[in-house]
Amino acid sequence: MSAAFTLSLDAMGGDFAPEIVVKGASLARERYPSAHFLLFGDELQLKALLAHDTRLAACSTIRHTDQVVTGETKPSQAIRQGRQSSMWKAIEAVKNGEAAGVVSAGNTGALMAMAKLIMRPLAGIDRPAICGLFPTQRGETAMLDLGANAQCDARNLVEFAIMGECFARAILGLERPSVGLLNIGSEDMKGTDSLREAAQILRSSHLDLEFKGFIEGDDITAGTVDVVVTDGFTGNVALKTAEGTVKLFSGFLKTAIRSSWLAQFGMLFAKPVLSQVMARADARRYNGALFVGLNGVVVKSHGGTDAVGFANAIGVAVDMIARDLNAQIAQELAHIAAREEAPQVVGAAAP
Amino acid sequence: MSAAFTLSLDAMGGDFAPEIVVKGASLARERYPSAHFLLFGDELQLKALLAHDTRLAACSTIRHTDQVVTGETKPSQAIRQGRQSSMWKAIEAVKNGEAAGVVSAGNTGALMAMAKLIMRPLAGIDRPAICGLFPTQRGETAMLDLGANAQCDARNLVEFAIMGECFARAILGLERPSVGLLNIGSEDMKGTDSLREAAQILRSSHLDLEFKGFIEGDDITAGTVDVVVTDGFTGNVALKTAEGTVKLFSGFLKTAIRSSWLAQFGMLFAKPVLSQVMARADARRYNGALFVGLNGVVVKSHGGTDAVGFANAIGVAVDMIARDLNAQIAQELAHIAAREEAPQVVGAAAP
Repeated sequence: MSAAFTLSLDAMGGDFAPEIVVKGASLARERYPSAHFLLFGDELQLKALLAHDTRLAACSTIRHTDQVVTGETKPSQAIRQGRQSSMWKAIEAVKNGEAAGVVSAGNTGALMAMAKLIMRPLAGIDRPAICGLFPTQRGETAMLDLGANAQCDARNLVEFAIMGECFARAILGLERPSVGLLNIGSEDMKGTDSLREAAQILRSSHLDLEFKGFIEGDDITAGTVDVVVTDGFTGNVALKTAEGTVKLFSGFLKTAIRSSWLAQFGMLFAKPVLSQVMARADARRYNGALFVGLNGVVVKSHGGTDAVGFANAIGVAVDMIARDLNAQIAQELAHIAAREEAPQVVGAAAP
Repeated sequence: MSAAFTLSLDAMGGDFAPEIVVKGASLARERYPSAHFLLFGDELQLKALLAHDTRLAACSTIRHTDQVVTGETKPSQAIRQGRQSSMWKAIEAVKNGEAAGVVSAGNTGALMAMAKLIMRPLAGIDRPAICGLFPTQRGETAMLDLGANAQCDARNLVEFAIMGECFARAILGLERPSVGLLNIGSEDMKGTDSLREAAQILRSSHLDLEFKGFIEGDDITAGTVDVVVTDGFTGNVALKTAEGTVKLFSGFLKTAIRSSWLAQFGMLFAKPVLSQVMARADARRYNGALFVGLNGVVVKSHGGTDAVGFANAIGVAVDMIARDLNAQIAQELAHIAAREEAPQVVGAAAP
């Protein structure tokens, strides 16, 4: 993105804030020289950090806040009592038009609750969702919801499918991304009523989606579809199970190599490519989940991330602003509404 | 297990039956020389396979069946129309006391439906579940349900916890296995009503469980608890997501190594330990999920497994028979009932 733009950062959100937020912004500044940052947080701390980084200081504005939303704060509590917090103020800056998007590594539930309240969901969207990218055998796959809505009905899942398709088109550059509904394998128990109902709606012609039907857990990383649609409970468990499995596997690898001198010798030669593998599976690379379905760009960084991860989350926000994802979702919803109203040829619906 | 025992095998179940069933039995025979096998399936095919394996033939009996339950057969259809099938007959042999347990690589839903109908659930158990082992950073963790019950209420989850605890005690040799309920991270949406209710029951003193509360997806492979309790939908998605992630990671590894001559040279030295890692994560090693909560031992092998995997599934059945898991579950349920009836000191309940 070459045009100048302003990003709002919740400088106090996350396990290692404000340090990694400032360092992340510093890394992002190199990648996006036309960026301006609004840093919401403790002025003294932020000033001290910016004192070491004159280049970042030159393109940043500090906005003092003295309230912090912690990881333990309940969303309901956050929206009642957290209106002076760095998180609230950072979101408000987008609503006010001062910033084009906001990034926070803070409490996910509170961030979603505040974003919904301040920005409101897009017209036609009942439940905004958390959308992220997974590495796969074929490239990358978008998955949503990753945890905003623990329980979902068929309508919610259909909305996720539409938003996920727009996301994949914008971010993965696919003309017609394929969509799958996450389910379990065995025939009799092909999931819940909501899943079956959602599948039926997704097959209808007015949606005009490349819907591939039900997929299973191993299809996520196989890259069977470009967009995996699921409820926030299942999506969150799947995401964290995958993260845990990568950690387990790389732990096994490290232990095994350390246990053998011969292997350590061999590793001297193999290390460069193994580092590549680790980099490909690096969770930081996939840091930055987008809250889709809101009137504004909100990106959630992993709470325990470092500066590299936070910079990647900023990158996701920049991408979303550049591709104007929200406008695309709104347009898609308008198209669907128009097709719904158009007279349908009987029997012409998809199988 | 040194005493002689008989296992019933569904020789026609799975993608590569009957070949891998017979070869798997052959491998298992070496490990358990006192085993006898009842092979249910097509007599001609089985005779031809046993002709090449006189040792296995010596400890096997073929029981001809000419019906096969395919992967596409619905459970309801299987129990109505499949009573002459290899699957049905193999389960019946356990019910009749001819075999101590049954192993099948066939259709999971049909196997569970038939097993429930023929063997009946244990007294006090409403929903039998599928239980398996996961490799973790600390050893192994049992997880259930892996797919038998897509939707579960609090009572079901509590039953799973009790059965899983007995399973971990019997198989992992732990005196007091810890139990966790799989949930999602963010505070406001700590899962569903069923999960919250189940957690409350699991904390009550009459159950006397080492209940650690809610855990998240990455806790499964971290080995945070010895028993992970979840509904069959989430459990199945988590299991398959983990399998898919291992496949992705090892695929990345192979591609990276093949891409570099230097790495290939280094791999000559590192290969032995890398093979160890692959063996540790080998899905075949974790093949053989137990149907817990039935009056009898039923082990489900992965449908696409090979002979090594099927032999491991037989090993799970042998373990379960040797440790008499069902008697332990029944005993545990009796203890709980007794504690429930005993007068409770007010205020002495767990927090």
